[in-house]
Amino acid sequence: MRLGAVETGGTKVVCLVGSGPDHIVAQTAIPTGEPVETLAQVLVFFQQEVASGGPLAAIGIASFGPLELRRSHPRYGFITTSPKPGWSYVDLVGPIRNTLGVPVGFDTDVNAAALSEGRWGSARGLDTFLYLTAGTGIGAGAVINGEVIHGLGHPEMGHVSVPHQPGDDFAGTCPFHGDCLEGMASGAAIAARWGCSAEQLDGEALLAATRLEAAYLAAGLRNIVYITAPQRVVIGGGVTGLPDLFPLLRASLTQTLAGYPNLVEHTAEEFIVPAELGPLAGPAGALILAHRTCARSPGCL
Amino acid sequence: MRLGAVETGGTKVVCLVGSGPDHIVAQTAIPTGEPVETLAQVLVFFQQEVASGGPLAAIGIASFGPLELRRSHPRYGFITTSPKPGWSYVDLVGPIRNTLGVPVGFDTDVNAAALSEGRWGSARGLDTFLYLTAGTGIGAGAVINGEVIHGLGHPEMGHVSVPHQPGDDFAGTCPFHGDCLEGMASGAAIAARWGCSAEQLDGEALLAATRLEAAYLAAGLRNIVYITAPQRVVIGGGVTGLPDLFPLLRASLTQTLAGYPNLVEHTAEEFIVPAELGPLAGPAGALILAHRTCARSPGCL
Repeated sequence: MRLGAVETGGTKVVCLVGSGPDHIVAQTAIPTGEPVETLAQVLVFFQQEVASGGPLAAIGIASFGPLELRRSHPRYGFITTSPKPGWSYVDLVGPIRNTLGVPVGFDTDVNAAALSEGRWGSARGLDTFLYLTAGTGIGAGAVINGEVIHGLGHPEMGHVSVPHQPGDDFAGTCPFHGDCLEGMASGAAIAARWGCSAEQLDGEALLAATRLEAAYLAAGLRNIVYITAPQRVVIGGGVTGLPDLFPLLRASLTQTLAGYPNLVEHTAEEFIVPAELGPLAGPAGALILAHRTCARSPGCL
Repeated sequence: MRLGAVETGGTKVVCLVGSGPDHIVAQTAIPTGEPVETLAQVLVFFQQEVASGGPLAAIGIASFGPLELRRSHPRYGFITTSPKPGWSYVDLVGPIRNTLGVPVGFDTDVNAAALSEGRWGSARGLDTFLYLTAGTGIGAGAVINGEVIHGLGHPEMGHVSVPHQPGDDFAGTCPFHGDCLEGMASGAAIAARWGCSAEQLDGEALLAATRLEAAYLAAGLRNIVYITAPQRVVIGGGVTGLPDLFPLLRASLTQTLAGYPNLVEHTAEEFIVPAELGPLAGPAGALILAHRTCARSPGCL
């Protein structure tokens, strides 16, 4: 099946045509500028692909949030109160559906990436698991009994509270909460704390930064693990490049769980694992969204 | 349909026969003593009910945890590492299924109560919501897309971390974590902090205790709300008897969410509501477990 995928990100919008991470027939990245111009370039990409390669059955959009996902809401398909300048109350689904005339699926970037790691990546075969990405920001998507969570909106897991590590008085960088998980452990937080990006750290500072990162990610994961009981935690994003982050993270999580509920699986190496799909997780997840919306649309499949 | 229900609790085991909270034909409460004697009394109750009123289609068990819920596990149907003396590694499902010869459903008390509030109580008509009970301990069950969460075990939401309120150096009462949500806000924590039970407090102490309780419950709910995006939060348990707890809790949650993700629904009175079913929530939920296991068992329905 020939599907389209859009992943909107803070710096670029990835568009592709295909049916899975191993079946991509066209791909482009558009810099994230003003919404109108950026979306116009997205439309041009797909119009050219349709003209040259034939029609698409459906398109999926995986976007940074917050998003309005309630189908009955007048702003369904919109980004809502985004901290990204100019991108609050931007309609993503409408222009794409109306201009290209195909069913459009829509979800958060992390929900899409979770679905994608579940189908093709590190969570294959599981039905209840977590995907967390720690890059400039922190977000996570949970798959519960095979489905992502859509309740009153969608999860915002980067904003859970985490206790400060002993002696750490860093105020955090979250514009809403200061020292939530994102405020303490995102790439932006590392940069604010150390005065340089994670990639530029070395020596003692790199060791100290990695230990702190592991401790704060573990503190956030403790809350997510106690609330969603995942079979596995898959972690992606730039901070996973910190050396030895994973063993430190496993040790920190074991410590903060403090022997409760005493599941040996929580301490196993296969409980916390790196993501497999890298930057393709989001766009490939958008292909799943496209496929699902097609399956729900009469005459599409 | 004639179903059986068992809710095991810290002080008593409630057993009933019926099909819903308004259709209970027999009920008893057995003091929670040693496991063997207690379970023997449960079996006698159901054997007498079968002899006098006819066979049961299935029985549901809603239990304090932690529980082994993985059907493929050799200890499926057991309580696992319970802090309750004598009740670790007790098989609940086996004796009841083998002695009474009916299909047996099994889940945590809070998962069962969540299902029950969803069918007959304060969460009717919703598919993604939370039930939290704050009594001697704190536990919560989430319904996500109509189903409770079963991953690697089940949620243990009472053990999420909560930041201390300014100036509060109370160490908490959780034997594992000290100052987790349960350690700071359970009935046991209130008793340890104030030297008397919540019901015995009055005057300034009652006001102060209620404000603290609202603040800590809100801190825990913030994490649960960011992780599960519930359409509603239903709260039961003894501490809901604290005067004006609900308005204070709504105000504290609004404060800790800090305007993110700016959903007006989070501040509405119908977002955080009292449970409707009271002590019947768990046993009535066990009837739902019984019905569901019957629906999965050939020849039962």
